[in-house]
Amino acid sequence: MPKVANRYLEVDPWRIIEKSFHPEQSLVSESIFALANEYLGVRGYFEEGYSGQRLVGSYCNGFYEEAPVAQAASYKGFIHKTRFMVNTVDWLWLKIRLAGETLDLARSAVSDFQRVLDLRTGLLEREFIWRARNGQALRISLQRLVSMTHPHLGWQRIRLTPLNFSGPVELEAGLDFAPVHEEKGENFWSCPRRELRDDGVAVLGQTIHLGRRLFAAFKLHLPPAVTTQPVEREKYSGLGFALQLRLGETSTVDKAVTYFAAKEPGGDPDAVWRAGIAVAEVHSRLTFDEVFAQQQAYWAGVWERSDIAIEGDPQNQQGIRFCIFQLYQTLRGADPGANIGAKGLTGEAYNGHTFWDTETYCLPFYLFNNPAAARSLLEFRHRTLPQALERAKELDCDGAFYPIATIDGTESCGLWQHASLQLQVGSAVAYGIRHYVKISEDREFLYRQGVEMLIQISRCYASRGQWSPRSGEFGFYGVMGPDEFQLMVNHNCYLNFMARKTFEYTLATLQTMQSACPDRLADVAARTGLRPEELADWEAKAARMRLPQDRESGIYEEHDGFFDLPHLDIREIPVTDFPLYHHWSYDRLYRYDMIKQPDVLMFIFLYNQEFSPAVKRANYDYYEPRCIHESSLSPSIHSILATELGYHGQAFELCRFATRLDLDNYNRNTGQGLHTTSLAAAWMNIVYGFGGMRSDGERLLFRPVLPRPWQAYRFRIRYRGSTIAVAVGKENAEFQVVDGPPVRIGIYDEEYSIDAAGRTVAIPETHRV
Amino acid sequence: MPKVANRYLEVDPWRIIEKSFHPEQSLVSESIFALANEYLGVRGYFEEGYSGQRLVGSYCNGFYEEAPVAQAASYKGFIHKTRFMVNTVDWLWLKIRLAGETLDLARSAVSDFQRVLDLRTGLLEREFIWRARNGQALRISLQRLVSMTHPHLGWQRIRLTPLNFSGPVELEAGLDFAPVHEEKGENFWSCPRRELRDDGVAVLGQTIHLGRRLFAAFKLHLPPAVTTQPVEREKYSGLGFALQLRLGETSTVDKAVTYFAAKEPGGDPDAVWRAGIAVAEVHSRLTFDEVFAQQQAYWAGVWERSDIAIEGDPQNQQGIRFCIFQLYQTLRGADPGANIGAKGLTGEAYNGHTFWDTETYCLPFYLFNNPAAARSLLEFRHRTLPQALERAKELDCDGAFYPIATIDGTESCGLWQHASLQLQVGSAVAYGIRHYVKISEDREFLYRQGVEMLIQISRCYASRGQWSPRSGEFGFYGVMGPDEFQLMVNHNCYLNFMARKTFEYTLATLQTMQSACPDRLADVAARTGLRPEELADWEAKAARMRLPQDRESGIYEEHDGFFDLPHLDIREIPVTDFPLYHHWSYDRLYRYDMIKQPDVLMFIFLYNQEFSPAVKRANYDYYEPRCIHESSLSPSIHSILATELGYHGQAFELCRFATRLDLDNYNRNTGQGLHTTSLAAAWMNIVYGFGGMRSDGERLLFRPVLPRPWQAYRFRIRYRGSTIAVAVGKENAEFQVVDGPPVRIGIYDEEYSIDAAGRTVAIPETHRV
Repeated sequence: MPKVANRYLEVDPWRIIEKSFHPEQSLVSESIFALANEYLGVRGYFEEGYSGQRLVGSYCNGFYEEAPVAQAASYKGFIHKTRFMVNTVDWLWLKIRLAGETLDLARSAVSDFQRVLDLRTGLLEREFIWRARNGQALRISLQRLVSMTHPHLGWQRIRLTPLNFSGPVELEAGLDFAPVHEEKGENFWSCPRRELRDDGVAVLGQTIHLGRRLFAAFKLHLPPAVTTQPVEREKYSGLGFALQLRLGETSTVDKAVTYFAAKEPGGDPDAVWRAGIAVAEVHSRLTFDEVFAQQQAYWAGVWERSDIAIEGDPQNQQGIRFCIFQLYQTLRGADPGANIGAKGLTGEAYNGHTFWDTETYCLPFYLFNNPAAARSLLEFRHRTLPQALERAKELDCDGAFYPIATIDGTESCGLWQHASLQLQVGSAVAYGIRHYVKISEDREFLYRQGVEMLIQISRCYASRGQWSPRSGEFGFYGVMGPDEFQLMVNHNCYLNFMARKTFEYTLATLQTMQSACPDRLADVAARTGLRPEELADWEAKAARMRLPQDRESGIYEEHDGFFDLPHLDIREIPVTDFPLYHHWSYDRLYRYDMIKQPDVLMFIFLYNQEFSPAVKRANYDYYEPRCIHESSLSPSIHSILATELGYHGQAFELCRFATRLDLDNYNRNTGQGLHTTSLAAAWMNIVYGFGGMRSDGERLLFRPVLPRPWQAYRFRIRYRGSTIAVAVGKENAEFQVVDGPPVRIGIYDEEYSIDAAGRTVAIPETHRV
Repeated sequence: MPKVANRYLEVDPWRIIEKSFHPEQSLVSESIFALANEYLGVRGYFEEGYSGQRLVGSYCNGFYEEAPVAQAASYKGFIHKTRFMVNTVDWLWLKIRLAGETLDLARSAVSDFQRVLDLRTGLLEREFIWRARNGQALRISLQRLVSMTHPHLGWQRIRLTPLNFSGPVELEAGLDFAPVHEEKGENFWSCPRRELRDDGVAVLGQTIHLGRRLFAAFKLHLPPAVTTQPVEREKYSGLGFALQLRLGETSTVDKAVTYFAAKEPGGDPDAVWRAGIAVAEVHSRLTFDEVFAQQQAYWAGVWERSDIAIEGDPQNQQGIRFCIFQLYQTLRGADPGANIGAKGLTGEAYNGHTFWDTETYCLPFYLFNNPAAARSLLEFRHRTLPQALERAKELDCDGAFYPIATIDGTESCGLWQHASLQLQVGSAVAYGIRHYVKISEDREFLYRQGVEMLIQISRCYASRGQWSPRSGEFGFYGVMGPDEFQLMVNHNCYLNFMARKTFEYTLATLQTMQSACPDRLADVAARTGLRPEELADWEAKAARMRLPQDRESGIYEEHDGFFDLPHLDIREIPVTDFPLYHHWSYDRLYRYDMIKQPDVLMFIFLYNQEFSPAVKRANYDYYEPRCIHESSLSPSIHSILATELGYHGQAFELCRFATRLDLDNYNRNTGQGLHTTSLAAAWMNIVYGFGGMRSDGERLLFRPVLPRPWQAYRFRIRYRGSTIAVAVGKENAEFQVVDGPPVRIGIYDEEYSIDAAGRTVAIPETHRV
């Protein structure tokens, strides 16, 4: 895999440290130093203004605008508008002037620069010394946090220490709705209302197309006797003030920001304003120390529950903690409207859209760390079921067609014209429901929301699939599977397999309900108009689903005709050709047996326990050398299977890309935002890979191995109401329930009951690396 | 085929007649009554202004503007801008005011309406009586023509006869650059220069993006003592004047218009102006009678050469003459920059783009009627070879990749994202060269331009094709063949077959040159950098080209996997579902064994003499019932093969759609413009179909049949410098050379020498319908 680390940050177990300023990495740093609390997110841009490269990104989860999709022709099923995560107010806006000079790290004389994000507190601090042209030297510390306990609260702390003078410095703090959305080249805001308040301002922003509203306000905590002057510009309100600094003494200014979005379109603007003011009143009584203490406590709880500790590998240690930190920042289950965009809340690329990544790559992390967040993700799909039903109609299908890219449940993929060929989201949702219910035993969810989605997804697949005249089998024609290097194929093996599983799980669920809760079954049947003949139809289609496979070798054919595609030795592709999407003609990508990301190997991973070791090995040996990993989601899945197959060197090598994908900017596009869904894959890479966890069967299983470079590692998971601590060393693996009732799990093919006393199992020879 | 005639025009052997005004057909009439002379074209819109539906379309062949293609993502090979035929000046602009009222056929009281296009003269005349609100009745005749002998000349004649009064009428004649391009919703003109002239005005128009220039001027021929007043508006210049009418007397005004485009971008605006003025000076000395006499003579020559006369079938008689008339209007070989857009010069749909239709469907008409025009079409491809070489590079290919849609040689298909999968244009160009050289024996063209294109096309195919690992054969992966209901397939049989033929013809040409003209071979080899190993490579690839075929039945498989596509009985598709592109989800079109237009049958038609009767029948019987004819080009090819196979009823039925496609508006979209390339297919339908002509072998062959409803038919063709007249009756078919030396041709499998004395051959029993 032609991926090379581009490391400029310090390696540290708990902190992300930029020592000395790297302007050439400014966008990358903005992504890495992004803060969020699931509700609001902000890139690590320089709030004081910066004339170098930057993306002033401030976002609210699930808060979108709309733009038309320009296309010369519009065929039925092509989308005409796309909804995207809109950039919002720059609530950190700041100006610092000293001796007539305005601070700008691209132009000012600055030394002793250091930027630190502490994963234990969520506090981001930037410190440096600024020497003005008149020789005055000022130490500046800029801190920020977004509160995990007050979702609408962001905090900025400015500390100034004159090193060789006493005298004034001028500041201005503001709320700026004027930043332009980078990709669209447009600003989407108007500001219909604003108000001066006690040492602060309040502004109501409204988006220009959909009229969606966002209230923002701040209150300054100033040294005594400092007075402020209002500053108004179009889409901007701020307060200017001067501080009288004294040599060697630190002056502190706090800016407590309230950020309150009306997530549903329309409604009463006054109600938004009043609600925002009320929240701001609560915030105005908080102090930095209180907020910071709560923040520390919150993050301590996260690490208590979810830390992965690795001995002997500082790089991967830092990498995986960064992943876990960002995953909690992106989603924690408090906000029911939230989902996970491909870049989380850290950039505009992929438009804030949610893909099948949510259920396929992200759900396991939340399932085993924060079941409420996991349920919240599935509820998003239930809430957007009406849009999926509508979409199915547009595509001449029955039931529910879940979109490949969405922020609000409507299809928003304007990237290419074949979004309607990507059918796998429905099966991912069904898999997510099954996985969630299996681990949480939340039958309430299954019997109310889950089963409704299952019926509509099965119905969609039954209507979209067709019978093969040659083999008499069922399957899907004209699809793009997970491997996006095959634009339009017939009988994609992944999709056929997952659709079969969807039919089977739907039927099994209905059968269970028949005996367990016939009333609820009758209810959902009435709500969905379920007909008995549909069940027979799904059963027949599941039973006769086509899974192209070479019987002798056991290798599944990715789709009909894949084995006749010309072979390409991907090791011979010059490294300068990557990423291939930029350097190869569009159609050339599609003409080889080269694959972009796991496809056959993906369903072998998802239903891992249903395949024999021989079949797994045959398929891995065939497909792995053909995989280009153009998707950042790809290496982890391969690493997990490699460990299972005993390819330990390769497994460890691939894991590196997962845990440090963004910290080392392997894909050279971290500047656009973090690969948020890949961060979740990195967690799987360790827990499912080296930890050997398998959660697709009836019993939770572990087959831990210790990668050779490591001394030991530990992780914890939530499972059916208990917390299991797992520690893996050179000789033994230890399992202990640290919270909750005893659980039964499998370890190296033996079944154990684990309780608070814990159990130590020797790592068998077969699993020694 | 769910196509129903929508006939509102009179049937007449030589004229297109609209008796009484049909406002609901206004757009259709504009297309049908379009005039052109290859250089300029104008729709039959109402020049006096009309508040009903209309498209003020005035076009210059090959004169284009540019617009960006908006796409969310841009992959390599996607086009970023598209060039399209821009709408130009409304040179017929006219206003007529009587008693304070302005004539508008949507609002005025009008009777005795008649519109007639005379195919023998090219004159379009519209007559009606207008009754103003004050009771004054005025007979109005509006005539127009575009001169076939003066390419830059358009003529408008206005004749006014007061029926019940004497008194004034006010008129204004102008040049209007303000009309908006309908599809783009934008006007593309500025007018940097204008000038009043003797009873006329001159204006220089300039397009806003590419700065291309068009000079327009008019001179009025007015009754004595009439004076004019200039009228100026943005993008408009005109002259107002009043006529004093006398009861029962006809007053005549002529407007002679000069229309002169600078076809190459850039250059000196003054030079365009001066050239335009010079042409206008020449035109100013012409009279209507002179111009009309020349026009009559020109069209008489056309009908002398190219008429198809049918006895006993007035509908098809009118239909085929309309086709021939429009084909001459579209192209006649005088203007070297001209090609044939899908709608000719009659509308904006398809952007004036040329497709593979030119060589595949249109070339035969010109080849056998106007060889200079045929050569001009092929020279267009040679002139645009540099763009095709450039396009190949963008698509990671060698040689020349001819675009699927173009006006200037650059790829301009912004309709969908898979234009780069449509490889068949190169093979169509190669086929066109072969066909042209075979019929014209123009080796000069072949050895200079033709061979250069052949080398670059072969080179492109050699680089784009790949070897099948399964069969070891060569072919094309990831393509869309002629059947656009299959988006992306492997080993499209048509493309593979045509590429093989391209390789073979290129190699044969080079071999002939080796002995016939080694110097010229050396010259082209040097110009193209031809390497000897390339020849071996093409030979190997031609020899091992994959042609998927069921050996037992002889049916070719349209592409790998076609026989496994689910079957659809197309007769069961409700008529309301058509056109399918509008009513079916985009992807649904691609999931059946339903085909849009001939694909396998197309190469069986093009290389007709290479296939056995049994193979032709097997393939026709298989593919015809699966063909939806969504392309207007489709019925003719099927009709030709149906006649050959003895399916005479079907052949005749299909021909109807070809000859009267636009007159009867079968596809319900004639309002957008004529199906110009299908008009050429209609000519083939009769000459190749009923006439049984075959031109793909060494000898020109005829196997005429007389369709049962016909009494007789006659047509003429040019062939190797001679004109052959063919007359087919109930018993005999007669062949006579009416001009030029004797020719040897095949008739019903016998070879004959035909001379001025002619030869009568009895129609054998096998060919009696």
